[in-house]
Amino acid sequence: MSYSSRVETLNAAGAQACLAQAAAAADRLGLSVCVAVVDQAGQLLAFCRMDGAPTLSIQLAQDKAYTVTAFGLPTAQWYPMIADEPALLHGIVKADRLMIFGGGAPVKAGGQIIGAVGVSGGTSDQDGQIAAAGAAAASD
Amino acid sequence: MSYSSRVETLNAAGAQACLAQAAAAADRLGLSVCVAVVDQAGQLLAFCRMDGAPTLSIQLAQDKAYTVTAFGLPTAQWYPMIADEPALLHGIVKADRLMIFGGGAPVKAGGQIIGAVGVSGGTSDQDGQIAAAGAAAASD
Amino acid sequence: MSYSSRVETLNAAGAQACLAQAAAAADRLGLSVCVAVVDQAGQLLAFCRMDGAPTLSIQLAQDKAYTVTAFGLPTAQWYPMIADEPALLHGIVKADRLMIFGGGAPVKAGGQIIGAVGVSGGTSDQDGQIAAAGAAAASD
Amino acid sequence: MSYSSRVETLNAAGAQACLAQAAAAADRLGLSVCVAVVDQAGQLLAFCRMDGAPTLSIQLAQDKAYTVTAFGLPTAQWYPMIADEPALLHGIVKADRLMIFGGGAPVKAGGQIIGAVGVSGGTSDQDGQIAAAGAAAASD
Repeated sequence: MSYSSRVETLNAAGAQACLAQAAAAADRLGLSVCVAVVDQAGQLLAFCRMDGAPTLSIQLAQDKAYTVTAFGLPTAQWYPMIADEPALLHGIVKADRLMIFGGGAPVKAGGQIIGAVGVSGGTSDQDGQIAAAGAAAASD
Repeated sequence: MSYSSRVETLNAAGAQACLAQAAAAADRLGLSVCVAVVDQAGQLLAFCRMDGAPTLSIQLAQDKAYTVTAFGLPTAQWYPMIADEPALLHGIVKADRLMIFGGGAPVKAGGQIIGAVGVSGGTSDQDGQIAAAGAAAASD
Repeated sequence: MSYSSRVETLNAAGAQACLAQAAAAADRLGLSVCVAVVDQAGQLLAFCRMDGAPTLSIQLAQDKAYTVTAFGLPTAQWYPMIADEPALLHGIVKADRLMIFGGGAPVKAGGQIIGAVGVSGGTSDQDGQIAAAGAAAASD
Repeated sequence: MSYSSRVETLNAAGAQACLAQAAAAADRLGLSVCVAVVDQAGQLLAFCRMDGAPTLSIQLAQDKAYTVTAFGLPTAQWYPMIADEPALLHGIVKADRLMIFGGGAPVKAGGQIIGAVGVSGGTSDQDGQIAAAGAAAASD
C-alpha cells in the first residue's frame, strides 16, 4: 500500500509567465488589476498590482486564486452552482476566503490543477477573462 | 442544592467509530469528503480527509460539527428555521463558525447530544447522509 | 523551460499509519495526547485526541505539524537555532502558527518532506518522541 | 492653509525593479527567498516566492515590508532599539505584523520613504542584504 501520492505543482517560472500574460490581457482591456498566482496547494507564488488598481483587490485577487485550488473550480462556476440553493447561497459564502464570482482560473497540466490565477479590479467577467489568459500561459 | 452537573460526552473510541462509518458511507456514494468529530463541547476529537476531498472542506467539516453542539440542531435544520426571518437570515449567518446547511449531525445518547459529526465534500444532502451514518455509529 | 514541479505528498492511508503509531507510542509512555497529520503543504489530513488529552493541545498539535512543512525542520530544532539571536527569539515566535519546541516531526520519502506529524500533551521531549514514532510509520 | 499633502509612492514598475534586484542578490547568495514589495502606505505591490523558499516566509516577507513603512525604519533597527527596554521588548512585539529583525528595507526618494522591500528565507542578515539590494533598485 502506498502512503504518498505525486502531485504536479506550478513553479516560480510558471507563475511569472501567468503574471505577464494576465497583465498583457488587462492592458488590452485598458484595465488596472491585481493578479495573484498560487501553487497547487493555494499558497502564494507571485503577485502584482498594476498602477491604478484598487487596493481592495489586493486580497480579493489572492482569495480568488486560493478558492480555485481549494475546491477545484473556476470561481465563476460557484454562483450558478448555488443560486438555486438558498441555504448554500446564504451559508457558504462566509467560508474563509471563498470567492463565488469570476476572476479565478485554474492552471492545468495533464488534466490536473497545478495552480491558479486570481484577478480583481474589473468586472467579474473581465477579471475572469484576464485570469484565464494568465492561466493559459502555464497550462498544457 | 447541587453545584455541578453530569454531562455525557463522546470519547476517542466513539469518534473513531463515527469516522469509520462516515467513511464507509462516503465510499458507498463514491465521494471523497472530510469528516470531523467533536465532543459534547464542540472540541475536535477526530478528523480525516479522504484522498481527493477538497481542501476547502477541511474547515467546513469542523465548523459543521461545531455548529451542531453549539446550538443543538443538525445543521440542515438551520436554513428552514431562518428562511422567513430576514433579520436572522442576513444577520446570524455571520456568527462565528455557524453553518446553516446540511452535513452536521448529532451523536446522541439517552436523548442528549454527546458529540457531533461534520462532513463536507459532496452536496449538502450527501454530506448530511454521510454525517448521519457516522453519528449513528456512536448513538444509542 | 518547465513551468511546474513534481512533489510527493502524504495521503490518507499514510496519515492513518502515522496516527496509529503515534498513539501506540503515547500508550507506551502512558500519555494522552493530540496527534495531527498534515500533507506536504501543511494541510490537515488526520487528527485524533486521546481520552484525557488537554484541549489546549488540539490546536498546538496542528500548529506543530504545520510548522514542520512550512519551514522544513522538526520543531525541536527551532529554539536552539534562535536561542542566541535575541531579535529572532523575541521576534519570530509571533509568526502565525510557528511552534519552536518539540513535538513536530517530518514524514520523509526520498529525502523530501512529504508531510508531518504534530503531537501535544506531554513534555516537548515526549511529544517529539511520539511524533517521530508516528512519522516513521510513513517515512521510507 | 492647505488641506492636503503630496506623497511620493513606489509604483508597479519600481516594484518590479526591486523584485528583480532582490532575486538577483538572492541568487548570488545561493538562497531561495520570498520577496514582497509594498507602496508608501504598506500595501502590497508585488511578490515572488523563489522555488524552494519556505512557505513560512510568504507572510514574513510581507510583514517585514509593511513594518518598514508603518514605522519608518529598516526592520533590523528595531531589536537594538528595544533590547534594553523590557516593557517594549515584551510588549510591542505583539503589535500586528511588527517584525523586529532584519529583512525589511526602505525604498527612498528625496529622503522620503516611498515604499519598502521585505525578504524572508535566509538568516536575518542575509534577508536584510537582499532587501537592501532590492530597495536600491528604485531608490534615488
